[in-house]
Amino acid sequence: MPRTLSDIAALLGGEIEGDAQTPVTGAAGVDDAGPGDIVFAEQPRFADEAAASPAAAVIAPPGLAVPGKPLLRVTHPRMAFARVLALFQSPERFPQGIADTARIGAGTTLGEGVAIGDFCRIGDGVTIGDGAVIFPLVFIGDNVTIGPGTVIFPNVTIYSDTEIGARVRIHAGTVIGADGFGYVTVDGQHEKIPHMGRVVIEDDVEIGACSCIDRAKTAETRIGQGTKIDNLVQVAHNVHLGKHCLVAGQTGLAGSSTLGDYVVLGGQVGINSHAHLGSGTRVAAQAGVMSDLPENATVSGYPAQEHNQTLRMWAASHRLPEMLRTVRALERRVQELERALSEKEGSG
Amino acid sequence: MPRTLSDIAALLGGEIEGDAQTPVTGAAGVDDAGPGDIVFAEQPRFADEAAASPAAAVIAPPGLAVPGKPLLRVTHPRMAFARVLALFQSPERFPQGIADTARIGAGTTLGEGVAIGDFCRIGDGVTIGDGAVIFPLVFIGDNVTIGPGTVIFPNVTIYSDTEIGARVRIHAGTVIGADGFGYVTVDGQHEKIPHMGRVVIEDDVEIGACSCIDRAKTAETRIGQGTKIDNLVQVAHNVHLGKHCLVAGQTGLAGSSTLGDYVVLGGQVGINSHAHLGSGTRVAAQAGVMSDLPENATVSGYPAQEHNQTLRMWAASHRLPEMLRTVRALERRVQELERALSEKEGSG
Amino acid sequence: MPRTLSDIAALLGGEIEGDAQTPVTGAAGVDDAGPGDIVFAEQPRFADEAAASPAAAVIAPPGLAVPGKPLLRVTHPRMAFARVLALFQSPERFPQGIADTARIGAGTTLGEGVAIGDFCRIGDGVTIGDGAVIFPLVFIGDNVTIGPGTVIFPNVTIYSDTEIGARVRIHAGTVIGADGFGYVTVDGQHEKIPHMGRVVIEDDVEIGACSCIDRAKTAETRIGQGTKIDNLVQVAHNVHLGKHCLVAGQTGLAGSSTLGDYVVLGGQVGINSHAHLGSGTRVAAQAGVMSDLPENATVSGYPAQEHNQTLRMWAASHRLPEMLRTVRALERRVQELERALSEKEGSG
Repeated sequence: MPRTLSDIAALLGGEIEGDAQTPVTGAAGVDDAGPGDIVFAEQPRFADEAAASPAAAVIAPPGLAVPGKPLLRVTHPRMAFARVLALFQSPERFPQGIADTARIGAGTTLGEGVAIGDFCRIGDGVTIGDGAVIFPLVFIGDNVTIGPGTVIFPNVTIYSDTEIGARVRIHAGTVIGADGFGYVTVDGQHEKIPHMGRVVIEDDVEIGACSCIDRAKTAETRIGQGTKIDNLVQVAHNVHLGKHCLVAGQTGLAGSSTLGDYVVLGGQVGINSHAHLGSGTRVAAQAGVMSDLPENATVSGYPAQEHNQTLRMWAASHRLPEMLRTVRALERRVQELERALSEKEGSG
Repeated sequence: MPRTLSDIAALLGGEIEGDAQTPVTGAAGVDDAGPGDIVFAEQPRFADEAAASPAAAVIAPPGLAVPGKPLLRVTHPRMAFARVLALFQSPERFPQGIADTARIGAGTTLGEGVAIGDFCRIGDGVTIGDGAVIFPLVFIGDNVTIGPGTVIFPNVTIYSDTEIGARVRIHAGTVIGADGFGYVTVDGQHEKIPHMGRVVIEDDVEIGACSCIDRAKTAETRIGQGTKIDNLVQVAHNVHLGKHCLVAGQTGLAGSSTLGDYVVLGGQVGINSHAHLGSGTRVAAQAGVMSDLPENATVSGYPAQEHNQTLRMWAASHRLPEMLRTVRALERRVQELERALSEKEGSG
Repeated sequence: MPRTLSDIAALLGGEIEGDAQTPVTGAAGVDDAGPGDIVFAEQPRFADEAAASPAAAVIAPPGLAVPGKPLLRVTHPRMAFARVLALFQSPERFPQGIADTARIGAGTTLGEGVAIGDFCRIGDGVTIGDGAVIFPLVFIGDNVTIGPGTVIFPNVTIYSDTEIGARVRIHAGTVIGADGFGYVTVDGQHEKIPHMGRVVIEDDVEIGACSCIDRAKTAETRIGQGTKIDNLVQVAHNVHLGKHCLVAGQTGLAGSSTLGDYVVLGGQVGINSHAHLGSGTRVAAQAGVMSDLPENATVSGYPAQEHNQTLRMWAASHRLPEMLRTVRALERRVQELERALSEKEGSG
């Protein structure tokens, strides 16, 4: 769906600087823009990045220089950009209506315009909100609630008692509500701890493919509103994620760990059980967080510590082999000094 | 299913100290207890942890003090606790009978009371033991054996020739028996090494969601009796896990690695191919085990080493930037001493 | 399918040294051989490994000594070995024909001899090449192309617009073409970046179980010809893998990272977004690659660096606690020297 900068200006308002016929094929963040993308910049730093990026065009406020790029000048670039994103959201290919091969349990309530694909197995007492879309081959257990506008992709499994909000997207292969990993060892046997809790996923959450959100032992495992989770992520029993968090691929949150709001976890991060991460905290990829972190911390490494401290340790580590040699040499020189001085004293 | 401490005493025997009407909503280990849980303690250390926990009540032997908690005094707390766990195991919602939409191959033997859910595809020559439950949307290949009382959750794939014991639980999305990752490079092409072995899962094993247990190249990949495996775990071809091991989420065991009995692996651990870990060994989260470990080792870090050694290295690493400065200063001081001494000698 | 060395010689030609009736049950690389396997060796180093391995027999060129093993002497051992692998490739149990329970969309073209298993949901405008095999419970979206001879195992999900080449194998539970993980934060909300690209998988690729290959934001995520990917691997949006790469289990490639040809990634490796790894580069297990790597690099550790440098750092790290003590002692000795010298000077 290629458009021109002129088409976009027609929709958003604003004033074009440069070639109004510049083709625009998509929209992206400035750090992830490809050729054809339109990006936005509000401050000089991002204007420089936008100028250096392969982006086709830039949405910018009056007065901000972005050399060499066709511009769309608007008063509120972020707000304009949100509308551009919606513009490029192509209509997805969703199943339509209720497939005749779907099996739907007793006492299930389907909202208006709900789609349920082939070979879905929906349990008893399930509620599915208006306009929700269930792709083929999805299993939904008993007493599950799914909010309006939510999309469940193929081969997803949702265990009983799960509550899913509105406009949630759950990608293929993901499993919501399996038992947590909890045992007590009694006489050499690992006895299973019953998991009688459930999973609650709030509105506007997106969960990638092949991720696992375990049910709580008691009470809830909860994913806060607007939080986005990538592929192959492990969320253990009784974990609570706050609102608007970002969790990158292959990260694992151990049992009863909790995140505040706007926490960002890089890929392959591990969070220890019972650890609490304050709102706004950022954890670098592959870090291992052992214990609580305050708000707005930026940590990295294993065990995770303040990122600047990690950088200092890495820098020092690189000089370690050289330092070892220096210390050995110093030992010899000191020994020589001691010898010389003791001779002097002997001869003094 | 809330109960009171009095209800539990009526079942287990024992004597109540404190409020007999204390509501109990679940059972947990002392390190993972929430409000409403009953826990057990046998020794002073765990009694202190129990006292400090939010647990509602504690099962304890005569004479052990657990300040501030309602107690159930019994002679054998662990044995009593095992019975409490069973008490709280709520009846799970299982499919009943053989769904008319299931497709079942030739020469398949179904035990008494077997349940097979909608849209299951069961191969030829499969044997399923009494009371086993197969949820909807499960694929089972040819010549698979499934023991009595085993539960297979939705969207699981079990490749041909797999042998699964009694009372095993396999959570949704898990794949048992896919080819191992083995190639030989011949003239610049990675030629596939045929995988003609199989997977054997012994009795009382539980496997989480979206985990992968690969079939052996020849012979077997084997999971020992009573071993519990979490979500998103990778068990490569020809791996042997002993009995009663615990393997936490996102851990990977490379080809032909072997574990003794009662080995505990934390989350996101990596075990090198062909490494053998002795019985009772414990590996901390995110550790990378490069080579064999003896029995009862406790290791951490990458490359994994004895945990106390890791702690010493971490402590030293933190002092590294400061030590660098000290060494630089020492170099200057030694140089100054050398100069001073040589002047003295020159003037001596 | 046990054979004797004599059977194999009858097929390949060559001359037997040792017991011609040696049973051979499989074929393997020399580092991964079990009893019963036949291996090949072309150079003295591999001959020694073969001799030390439990392999039953060895394919070797004239003149190469492999003490203690029955040999098959051939002029080109690698070429002979490739034919042995094919010999042991047992006929797999594939579904036959088009299942009457499969649902196939409009405008779909099926080649000759295609098999589609029970409960598959195939979209509109799909093309499936001659002899391709789709196991039960597979979802294939609209406008997908699947090349001849390709095998898709159960419970796989392939999103719309994906292009898959010839002789590709995709194991159970894997998800191809889900949305990449991309958002732009506008007024405190993570707005979804539309993913309008697709996934292209070239010929002769094999992908393990429960892996995820995300669709591109725009343009393509691409897996090069002959590349092999293990289980639980994450390939993010716009990643390009070259030809004949090997990617071990639980490894993650972040958005827009690219690999040249013949790159080898160990297990649990992380590759940073936008990093480019030159052809022939090898990354050790659990390493974290932060930035570009040249051709034929061998790296390890976190952050990944040249492997020999990592080894030196590890060695030095082990001596760190001892070095700390040495430095403290040196400080005292230098202080003592300074004191002694200043006394001398005072008295001089």
